[in-house]
Amino acid sequence: MNTSLSDCPIGAFDSGVGGLTVVQAMRELLPSEDILYLGDTARVPYGNKSPDTIIRYSRENMAYLRSHGVKAVVVACNTASAHALAVLQKESDIPVIGVIAPGVEAALSATRNQRIGIIGTHGTIQSEAYQNLLRQSRSEVMITAIAAPLLVSLVEEDWLSHPATHLILEEYLAPMKAARVDTVVLACTHYPLLKPLAQRILGPEVVLVDSAQNAAAALARTLETSAIKRSSGSGKGRITICATDLPAQFSRLVERFLGEKIKKISQVSLS
Amino acid sequence: MNTSLSDCPIGAFDSGVGGLTVVQAMRELLPSEDILYLGDTARVPYGNKSPDTIIRYSRENMAYLRSHGVKAVVVACNTASAHALAVLQKESDIPVIGVIAPGVEAALSATRNQRIGIIGTHGTIQSEAYQNLLRQSRSEVMITAIAAPLLVSLVEEDWLSHPATHLILEEYLAPMKAARVDTVVLACTHYPLLKPLAQRILGPEVVLVDSAQNAAAALARTLETSAIKRSSGSGKGRITICATDLPAQFSRLVERFLGEKIKKISQVSLS
Repeated sequence: MNTSLSDCPIGAFDSGVGGLTVVQAMRELLPSEDILYLGDTARVPYGNKSPDTIIRYSRENMAYLRSHGVKAVVVACNTASAHALAVLQKESDIPVIGVIAPGVEAALSATRNQRIGIIGTHGTIQSEAYQNLLRQSRSEVMITAIAAPLLVSLVEEDWLSHPATHLILEEYLAPMKAARVDTVVLACTHYPLLKPLAQRILGPEVVLVDSAQNAAAALARTLETSAIKRSSGSGKGRITICATDLPAQFSRLVERFLGEKIKKISQVSLS
Repeated sequence: MNTSLSDCPIGAFDSGVGGLTVVQAMRELLPSEDILYLGDTARVPYGNKSPDTIIRYSRENMAYLRSHGVKAVVVACNTASAHALAVLQKESDIPVIGVIAPGVEAALSATRNQRIGIIGTHGTIQSEAYQNLLRQSRSEVMITAIAAPLLVSLVEEDWLSHPATHLILEEYLAPMKAARVDTVVLACTHYPLLKPLAQRILGPEVVLVDSAQNAAAALARTLETSAIKRSSGSGKGRITICATDLPAQFSRLVERFLGEKIKKISQVSLS
């Protein structure tokens, strides 16, 4: 029996667990799809690495997913999307979806005063990937871009509503308030877990654009237009989680980011 | 002309810049020695990785330093010392010095009430390397060990006296105060930069044991007993800094941790 392309899994990768917020959104929007997720936990994080190193790691992640027969790949990491997406798309004959274009599109739909904020890792902000795409799409937009490197550890350590996290996020968001942005892109897959706190700090009138939901929606559109979406009669899709390292606290983190229980996480080698 | 072993450089490695606090202490105590430092910035940090992965990375760092003719190696990283030191020492015919035994020795000399605190990364604390060595050396000692994973990013981002850092450090140190420890081991090479704040929180009567100074002193003793110390007539030693990745903010970080200007940092590959 031949497996049709539609029945092949969707691949997704990130430096660690952050990309699982994207996978959670994919599970909600595309419940029949099988998903193969790779977290490069042996080299996490990517946000403080150089562009060349991020491209090299992203290629290795991509090769692993391709060797497992995925029909499309989601680069579920803002830093990897910023530096490596164009290279991966050029080298690939299957669809490769990043998190940046969907976030930019959502931000441009949401803003009314054309003032948009972006927070992300050093790598994402320094790449100017969001800034360039926003300006290319709408030249009059005013952008406030802030590197917020402390947030990833705070999220991973589950200090989501700690007074210190409040203080830190308030400091990062202060320039956004001063610039009177009405839309803020959470340009890191860890940040959806900080959405309630960010909304409290910025006020209810500011729209927070979440990488996860918009990337999942872009994936759904691509599967439709490429005619490789799995039929909804296939039942609930399976999820397979692999990681390049399995430190002690990893499975607890996976369940918190994914929002569902996972029986087994496999350690894999990319070399 | 043959170079004598005494004139060979000392090697030191860490996952990133933290080990430069140890190098700074080595420069003060052993000013004539040449030093070759390797920061594994392509895979930093080690504190959230598994023991097997830390051992693999440490072996690769060691091989790099050996191939450049070092006469002794300092494992200038608490996490690598905790998991990989015994393996590296077994496989090596030159002296390999870690940061843990010197810290334990200093803590045992300092304590008067036999209550000792340890703060470090998840990897260092979970390894129980400090706890086991303290108990083996003096069974009646009472230990309070706390994983403090948020501190590394705060130090690297230079938030050394920020109110958020105060809040976070206060929370980590609260169990130490409750246990009435009179000595705290700063079991991560990043933490010497937080010494003033930690001292303010714990009070002036608590002794803070610093990995860096004690490891440098242990190295000096080893060079003496192995008769491979460079003669003080050799002038000021040179320092060479290599890293497996050179992200944008790296040279600024190097100067802050090392406390001196560095002309050139080379990117090297370990494979």
